[in-house]
Amino acid sequence: LSQTLRSIAPNRRGVLVAAAAVKLSTSSTLRLSSNLPPLASSLYPPISADGRSLSRSSYSRIEPADLLVFADIIGQNHVITDPFEVLAANTDWPRDCRGQGGHVLRPGCAEEVSAILRHCQKRRIAVVPQGGNTGLAGGGVPVFDELVLSLSRMNRVLEIDAVAGLVVAEAGCVLADLDSHLSEHGLTVPLDLAAKGSCQIGGNLSTNAGGIRVLRYGSLRGSVRGLEVALASGELIDCGRVNEDESRLVQLMIGSEGTLGVLTKVTLACPPRPANVRLVLIGCDSFQSVLHLFSAARSTLAETLSAFEVMDAATMSAVSDNLKLNCPLSGSSEFYALVETASCDASGSNDAGKLDKFLECLVSLNHESAGSIDAVISNDSRQFGAIWALRERAFEALVADCGPAGGYMQFDAAVSDRLDMQRLVLATRAEFGQLDCVIRVAGFGHLGDGNLHLVVTADPAGAAACGLWPRVEAFVYGWLARRRGSISAEHGLGWKRSAYLGHCKSPTAVSVMAGIKRLLDPQGILNPYKVLPPSALSY
Amino acid sequence: LSQTLRSIAPNRRGVLVAAAAVKLSTSSTLRLSSNLPPLASSLYPPISADGRSLSRSSYSRIEPADLLVFADIIGQNHVITDPFEVLAANTDWPRDCRGQGGHVLRPGCAEEVSAILRHCQKRRIAVVPQGGNTGLAGGGVPVFDELVLSLSRMNRVLEIDAVAGLVVAEAGCVLADLDSHLSEHGLTVPLDLAAKGSCQIGGNLSTNAGGIRVLRYGSLRGSVRGLEVALASGELIDCGRVNEDESRLVQLMIGSEGTLGVLTKVTLACPPRPANVRLVLIGCDSFQSVLHLFSAARSTLAETLSAFEVMDAATMSAVSDNLKLNCPLSGSSEFYALVETASCDASGSNDAGKLDKFLECLVSLNHESAGSIDAVISNDSRQFGAIWALRERAFEALVADCGPAGGYMQFDAAVSDRLDMQRLVLATRAEFGQLDCVIRVAGFGHLGDGNLHLVVTADPAGAAACGLWPRVEAFVYGWLARRRGSISAEHGLGWKRSAYLGHCKSPTAVSVMAGIKRLLDPQGILNPYKVLPPSALSY
Repeated sequence: LSQTLRSIAPNRRGVLVAAAAVKLSTSSTLRLSSNLPPLASSLYPPISADGRSLSRSSYSRIEPADLLVFADIIGQNHVITDPFEVLAANTDWPRDCRGQGGHVLRPGCAEEVSAILRHCQKRRIAVVPQGGNTGLAGGGVPVFDELVLSLSRMNRVLEIDAVAGLVVAEAGCVLADLDSHLSEHGLTVPLDLAAKGSCQIGGNLSTNAGGIRVLRYGSLRGSVRGLEVALASGELIDCGRVNEDESRLVQLMIGSEGTLGVLTKVTLACPPRPANVRLVLIGCDSFQSVLHLFSAARSTLAETLSAFEVMDAATMSAVSDNLKLNCPLSGSSEFYALVETASCDASGSNDAGKLDKFLECLVSLNHESAGSIDAVISNDSRQFGAIWALRERAFEALVADCGPAGGYMQFDAAVSDRLDMQRLVLATRAEFGQLDCVIRVAGFGHLGDGNLHLVVTADPAGAAACGLWPRVEAFVYGWLARRRGSISAEHGLGWKRSAYLGHCKSPTAVSVMAGIKRLLDPQGILNPYKVLPPSALSY
Repeated sequence: LSQTLRSIAPNRRGVLVAAAAVKLSTSSTLRLSSNLPPLASSLYPPISADGRSLSRSSYSRIEPADLLVFADIIGQNHVITDPFEVLAANTDWPRDCRGQGGHVLRPGCAEEVSAILRHCQKRRIAVVPQGGNTGLAGGGVPVFDELVLSLSRMNRVLEIDAVAGLVVAEAGCVLADLDSHLSEHGLTVPLDLAAKGSCQIGGNLSTNAGGIRVLRYGSLRGSVRGLEVALASGELIDCGRVNEDESRLVQLMIGSEGTLGVLTKVTLACPPRPANVRLVLIGCDSFQSVLHLFSAARSTLAETLSAFEVMDAATMSAVSDNLKLNCPLSGSSEFYALVETASCDASGSNDAGKLDKFLECLVSLNHESAGSIDAVISNDSRQFGAIWALRERAFEALVADCGPAGGYMQFDAAVSDRLDMQRLVLATRAEFGQLDCVIRVAGFGHLGDGNLHLVVTADPAGAAACGLWPRVEAFVYGWLARRRGSISAEHGLGWKRSAYLGHCKSPTAVSVMAGIKRLLDPQGILNPYKVLPPSALSY
């Protein structure tokens, strides 16, 4: 801190501001689905070949007569069979799940979704609802030859009530676009995440996506005031746009990853858009210091605290090595905390005192830890993208260690005790870090929510030779089960984690979930093989 | 405003403070369940005699052998048969629902709840889970002779994680007690409502209670990080204390009013406790002005805005006439807005500028409306209880027009367009206000959430003679259905509104809800006759 804070001139409000500390790419938004490999590439084997002994259920194959029906419903143009587009829709963003579906449908409204599902139900054709295809658990792509139902054309913002702070939007609205619409009315979406430039609000709700704003606005589901859902039968349920406490049905759909229904429309409560944002990037010597700062941030910044993210040195080195992004801190640290404040006070003068108090805690902690803490503060919105990129592109940076094919494994763990966020990384590193094939064991995530993204990267051939990935998976899930953590925090269970649900759910809970699935989707046509372990369901 | 603001001296921070404007009872917490009528009273007929042609389902009657089993599980002391206590448990707080149950069980832990339910399931005995018995929809008392399962002994705070801001508590914790425990750790419950001195957190979650903090912290369900639930079978599902996005099961239980399971334990995310609170009570000439101020409050106070309540002149006159509470404003107004700000800034100096901006809007609106706006501002916590009592005791004040027996009807409506909060009151007043028997048609509620509490009071005999209540109910529900509002916002459906669910839910939605009920409670032993219309379920 001594070094950094000394180099930063206090501005007239007494707030320390980094003087052009960051000169980086300003894009913090990942643009996904680009540069897909050629169709014939053998780099990405179908996920059904991943070693699990899962066989295709007896769904009907799509026949020419079905395509005629679909063309009747949505128009020939929107029945996609172009191989490149079909491959894109079959491949997930991390490139480690790939289905073998042959068709993508792009309905333009809820009634078309409904008509498609009615036909699929009648013919028992399996369907994968797909939003921005930015999922990390393989929930949005086919496993075998399921039909992809893309919501991307349903991207209209239907209504904004600026007084009440409500927006009604179709499920296919891209998160960043929706936020941009809301900004014209002084509102913001109570959700922000790295994939915002591609992910869709329907997909966000389907996974109950977390992101960096849960600390400020709570779980996304708490902001949902209504949903329109197409059931497997094709029936549409419109739960309106009011705050109905009987809408448990709405809540059941949120986070169901398209296995209980297809979300077509959403009504969200939206908070006022902050007029003043500041970022503090802090290098810490220990996780204990990070936790100390988190406590300090909660008490001193409180209602103005809008994000508290953490990443470890391994993550920062990947960002630096692989993406060539520069950390504006002068030295290197064991942990990095990214603290954001946001308020309605455009001048910043009202909230300066709160930030000052937090900085006092920072200075005092630095004193206690013998000057090992380093920090920069920015109130320049032109720098925000570059600073945020360090955190938001962390996963991308780690995957670049090894390429996407078999060279990494990522976890989305939720832990009870915040210290477990560090303990799990240390335990995994101790267990596998010494293996020749392992490149990095890195951790980053949402400290405020206890969500850790643990990533292990390795040489693909070496990992395959020593059976690394099943061992890593078993180790991490076992560790989490012992510590009463969860194998899934905010990315959903999708395909990748469905088999492991039993690690954090009792047989009774799994059986109730399976019962609800059978009740709502008796033929199992909606997003099969996802969320629930195959043992819990039989179709 | 001119008159009031002039009489208030600006303090040194430039914030206007009411100088001892309020000298009232400081208790804003309703202590319920007191002064129950003698058992023999004929004032409160059993609710099964309320005119609905509902007959008792074929549940088993409780026999002496059952009582022995229950005594074995929880101890003889906690099998309550004392007539007075049994009557209290059979009568809801508004005194318009009364069951005929003969027994109350008071288990001391989840395992005892589980064992009781196992026995009830085996014998097919119907059970009503009961928290603080402060419900307003008749959801927490028997309809016929159901067994009352009181959670009141399960009131332990099990764990507080001050760093993460989490509390784990048993379902029977009284809300105010829980909040008081949390205050020792600098935390607060993200929920506040008038019944806080009696209501229990399990009951709050069972109805997904709203209250005055939804505006600040969002819907209560968004703060839930885990639940323990006893199913009808007696099986316990412990969804832990982590943020699991697969926990749709948790969400399904929230708001299910004890019909799908009995909540035994909850993990809540708790925000930092505000250190500085201010209250502004404003008298307005029109609802349009109130809406204007609400918009202003959202943009100028934003993250520090912690409540925005509204009440009309009819409500305020009932508070004044029946409870003898004095409104600190000098004149009378058409509408009253109660605006609360809360922040972590103990001195208040940082947030003074935000409040100043809001007050500027107030002054300017007063100017536009020719001086018809009146306001007092208080930062004296000793006055808060008295000011809040005006709003929190509104329902109590209105019921006092006529006594509880057949003299009033209250609604808990959620509306889409905020203006409908006024329109519904005006329409109801136009329809019934001229009848001789009608005393008052009053509206108050949570403007931020679009939740209106509409209350009609009348002379009981006159109301009965002209069949007033069925007409009022039909009128209000019809109006809400046409305007796409909801018949229930935050009080639950309980017994009173269960028959009307179809007014705001499609047959498909009702049938899915009934399917889930049958799945989780195949014998229908949990809180029968509640939430779903009898036509949707048959046991």
